[in-house]
Amino acid sequence: MARRHQTVSFLSDYGHADEFVGVVHSVIRSIAPHVTVVDLVHDLAPYDVRQAALTLSRVVQYVAPGIVLAVVDPGVGSDRRAIAVEVGEEGEGILVGPDNGLLAPAVAMSGGASRVVELTNPAYQLPAPGPTFAGRDVFAPAVAHLANGVDITDLGAEVDPYTLRPGLVPLSRQEDGSIVGEVLWIDRYGNCQLNVDPAEIDGWGDAVIMRLPHEQVRRGRRVTSFAELGPGQVGLIVDSYGLVAIATERSSAAEALRLEPGSGVTLEPGS
Amino acid sequence: MARRHQTVSFLSDYGHADEFVGVVHSVIRSIAPHVTVVDLVHDLAPYDVRQAALTLSRVVQYVAPGIVLAVVDPGVGSDRRAIAVEVGEEGEGILVGPDNGLLAPAVAMSGGASRVVELTNPAYQLPAPGPTFAGRDVFAPAVAHLANGVDITDLGAEVDPYTLRPGLVPLSRQEDGSIVGEVLWIDRYGNCQLNVDPAEIDGWGDAVIMRLPHEQVRRGRRVTSFAELGPGQVGLIVDSYGLVAIATERSSAAEALRLEPGSGVTLEPGS
Amino acid sequence: MARRHQTVSFLSDYGHADEFVGVVHSVIRSIAPHVTVVDLVHDLAPYDVRQAALTLSRVVQYVAPGIVLAVVDPGVGSDRRAIAVEVGEEGEGILVGPDNGLLAPAVAMSGGASRVVELTNPAYQLPAPGPTFAGRDVFAPAVAHLANGVDITDLGAEVDPYTLRPGLVPLSRQEDGSIVGEVLWIDRYGNCQLNVDPAEIDGWGDAVIMRLPHEQVRRGRRVTSFAELGPGQVGLIVDSYGLVAIATERSSAAEALRLEPGSGVTLEPGS
Repeated sequence: MARRHQTVSFLSDYGHADEFVGVVHSVIRSIAPHVTVVDLVHDLAPYDVRQAALTLSRVVQYVAPGIVLAVVDPGVGSDRRAIAVEVGEEGEGILVGPDNGLLAPAVAMSGGASRVVELTNPAYQLPAPGPTFAGRDVFAPAVAHLANGVDITDLGAEVDPYTLRPGLVPLSRQEDGSIVGEVLWIDRYGNCQLNVDPAEIDGWGDAVIMRLPHEQVRRGRRVTSFAELGPGQVGLIVDSYGLVAIATERSSAAEALRLEPGSGVTLEPGS
Repeated sequence: MARRHQTVSFLSDYGHADEFVGVVHSVIRSIAPHVTVVDLVHDLAPYDVRQAALTLSRVVQYVAPGIVLAVVDPGVGSDRRAIAVEVGEEGEGILVGPDNGLLAPAVAMSGGASRVVELTNPAYQLPAPGPTFAGRDVFAPAVAHLANGVDITDLGAEVDPYTLRPGLVPLSRQEDGSIVGEVLWIDRYGNCQLNVDPAEIDGWGDAVIMRLPHEQVRRGRRVTSFAELGPGQVGLIVDSYGLVAIATERSSAAEALRLEPGSGVTLEPGS
Repeated sequence: MARRHQTVSFLSDYGHADEFVGVVHSVIRSIAPHVTVVDLVHDLAPYDVRQAALTLSRVVQYVAPGIVLAVVDPGVGSDRRAIAVEVGEEGEGILVGPDNGLLAPAVAMSGGASRVVELTNPAYQLPAPGPTFAGRDVFAPAVAHLANGVDITDLGAEVDPYTLRPGLVPLSRQEDGSIVGEVLWIDRYGNCQLNVDPAEIDGWGDAVIMRLPHEQVRRGRRVTSFAELGPGQVGLIVDSYGLVAIATERSSAAEALRLEPGSGVTLEPGS
């Protein structure tokens, strides 16, 4: 037997309108009643693997020790692989999900894969009335049995980690003294996280010119808290993950500036 | 004392905008701190007992052993009964909720009621400042005391199971070689589950004619995964509960075809 | 060491679209794995401290013994204080959150503050990549360490309870035989809770005249359950917290009467 795990941290695009999340919890609870399931987020945009991979890579550094279950799975029922990826020096963490790029950035941030298996052993799956709910029939039983101490290699054949589907993390670039980046994430408050590190704009002074979609050119002010911004002002703040974000005061910057995930943003020194 | 229970699986139309779900959790936690509450789903349409009963009947086969709490309760405060229903050969499961048809299909799928009581004993209720939140004042204390090992008959007078309000499960029918059915459920992804068993259309070949509301006649293709569908194609897939569902590729079939729960759908062999 | 706590009851405006709630759970789970986190509600309107304070004051009487974590924090990153407030005769409860009025009504309802500290000790915080996610970096570690039995005074310097920011609880008033109040809360079903106690309109008979925004004058009927209302009728019901609420039958009174939180409502005897 391998080590037992106490926590499953669970992320998906299942939303809350249906019972999907609850059924996955129920299956885990039925097989491994000692486990606590921590819901990371389930209202990710349906089928949006890129957004989910970015979210998981933000979150993975904070999850409790144990197993991560991530399900955004537009290819469910096709020949995409279902996988479990062991990470860490002594295999102390395991990430489970479809092999579609969703897990890749988080695996890299966790020190890389030590062992990977494809979840093919029917002894650790539920009989599936139809092929479309792998979260219930394949992934939930897998994480529950892993939590019970079943060895990862009992779940299926080992897979070469180098054959895993890579994740795409968009990088910013320098161009004629400006930074060409994009919006990675828009949060509930409308703050727009960019793929720009504060170090990239160090020494620029407090004012930054932002070239935004729809031919918008806006002047932004570097601030250290939302409260420094006055009405109508646009700020650049170091956000909670240490990246530059565009923000406005108690209102949605995304709405005011018509930004969405993937929108291109070019920054230039403001003076 | 009766057996103790470790899990309460909880379904409601309380939504997430208010504190209703959290207060029910709090009351259970205060009375029975050893219990884990598994949230099945809470964003069911307000007052929609039919949808909730269908959801519960889908889910009940997967819930962890213990107690099910289901609250969609438009008649709260009126003379509708609040009930606890013991199911299973040795009374190993209990379903708790209003007697309005919500529990009936799930009770039937769980082998039928062995004992039923009306929740009338004030000793196992909270004092209610007003009559409108039975989830907090009647149902949550009931499930918590049941989980603590209180016998079901301590909660109130026994009720004849045959007097329970029946649930309505819409059945499909054959008519001149076609199947006349309806949409049971539209999930987050826009897949439309029909009350049609795949066996009913066995031997029809891959093409199926669908007569839909708004005078629509569409040709559907039987597929085994979403990925087989091309853009603009409409598929018929065996869904995760083993019923026929209408689906499109990475988009909402419900939106494309203007379907909603209860929409009539007639299927005919396509060639 | 102080007492250990088993439960953290958690309320915020973080919503469910992002991972904020999940990350707070993860941090608590990592530091204090024995704790159960009960989610009270997270879909409070962003930045709306008044609504959150009212919600917390409704809920606090039902929360399980232990710690309450409340985060609606428009001033995050500014000089607003982060605080922990011990309540109860023997310090058996602790409320944690920003000092912006959010906690004040709940503290008062819990018997007042015995000890208050400002959360300034970096030893009980996470290193913050940016200042905007105090829930993760300041509040979650604080509640987890408190749950582990760290004494409240280890988290920072004591603060005079009389310097805490007060909460504003709107009071109704009598005026020429009528009651001038306002809408405190509109729930998912559209019921409109007023800041009016049923005792204030005792002896008025069953009919009540309501003067509402947009020059509306409507006749309401006092009822004891929603089911007593016919289509189109407007009722006044004692709601689940013991206050007078405006309701309609299986529909949203807020929508029908164009009410929102804060709307002024004047009640007069109807005959």
